[in-house]
Amino acid sequence: MKNSFDLREHDTYLNIVDVAERLFAGVGFQKTTVADIAHELHMSPANVYRFFSSKAEINEAVGRRLLSEIETTVGDIVRQSDSARQRLREIVIAIREAFAQRLRSNRKLFELVETAFNENWPIVHEHVEKLDKSLGEVIAQGAREGEFHVSDPELAAMLVRSACLQFCHPRLMLEREQEPEPTVDQMIDFCLAALG
Amino acid sequence: MKNSFDLREHDTYLNIVDVAERLFAGVGFQKTTVADIAHELHMSPANVYRFFSSKAEINEAVGRRLLSEIETTVGDIVRQSDSARQRLREIVIAIREAFAQRLRSNRKLFELVETAFNENWPIVHEHVEKLDKSLGEVIAQGAREGEFHVSDPELAAMLVRSACLQFCHPRLMLEREQEPEPTVDQMIDFCLAALG
Repeated sequence: MKNSFDLREHDTYLNIVDVAERLFAGVGFQKTTVADIAHELHMSPANVYRFFSSKAEINEAVGRRLLSEIETTVGDIVRQSDSARQRLREIVIAIREAFAQRLRSNRKLFELVETAFNENWPIVHEHVEKLDKSLGEVIAQGAREGEFHVSDPELAAMLVRSACLQFCHPRLMLEREQEPEPTVDQMIDFCLAALG
Repeated sequence: MKNSFDLREHDTYLNIVDVAERLFAGVGFQKTTVADIAHELHMSPANVYRFFSSKAEINEAVGRRLLSEIETTVGDIVRQSDSARQRLREIVIAIREAFAQRLRSNRKLFELVETAFNENWPIVHEHVEKLDKSLGEVIAQGAREGEFHVSDPELAAMLVRSACLQFCHPRLMLEREQEPEPTVDQMIDFCLAALG
């Protein structure tokens, strides 16, 4: 168990992330400096640097929180008692809706996530790995219970996620809005057909 | 039939596109001005503007030529006598290889295509439409000959193209290089399974 010193440190860490997220939502992450964040928290920039070695690390921490909210939603769906087919559909729809909702509620925070994907930040890599793990669990269950005919659930998870990329990728969602695209339900039906 | 005046005009149009492509390949399309292009052709910028109402239109003309080379390759595959399954595979592999080859041979021209996709230029929309048409033809043939169980080849074409997006999209190819992605063959197998 953490001692009280560690807890206080952890609180400060969380405060920095909270304040950074608020400032990012207001003026954008590119225009927010470590000095701005320190100022809001009535602390010195040097103190912020005790927790984050660079501004980029703060960006990643805020981005990670946004993506982990999506991962939690996906995890909740994995544990539901619906059929595997139904859960796969719900997962992709939930991810798309989470990005769309972020876009509607705060364009500037959405830009942070967009940039993370554009520049391939490590948090995106982690996010994709977690997503694959969740999809893989559902597919493996579906395979055990005869819903799918799949011998490699891990590979199948990557294939479903890749096939649904335009619904799980912030910039692609925007970019492909005007194209005559399949709907998310059509794409899921296609994937479910492939899973047999 | 065009008269000689039209032909001369058409030659000038092609010369402008040729020179623009050469300059774009050298210094990049953003740094190339209409004045640079006119200078290379020993003509006035005003004369260039007789053919293109803006620099953006020249960018599009160069980009269209690059994409139409890919469309020609795809069209050639459509007319081959291989099975529909084999032709679908070859189409996606050829598109990926065409982008990869452009990336290797000239990074600056690749940037033009990348920007066209990023910014959703009309030429990309046209390219995607042509691609869908070619995929749809092969799928419709495959359906007629019992290779596929597909009732809507147009929709199926969109689904295959969307599922294979990361192999047919210049920036995604770069972005997703480091991810544990399915290979193009695995993705095609997945699509073929979905097509039944």
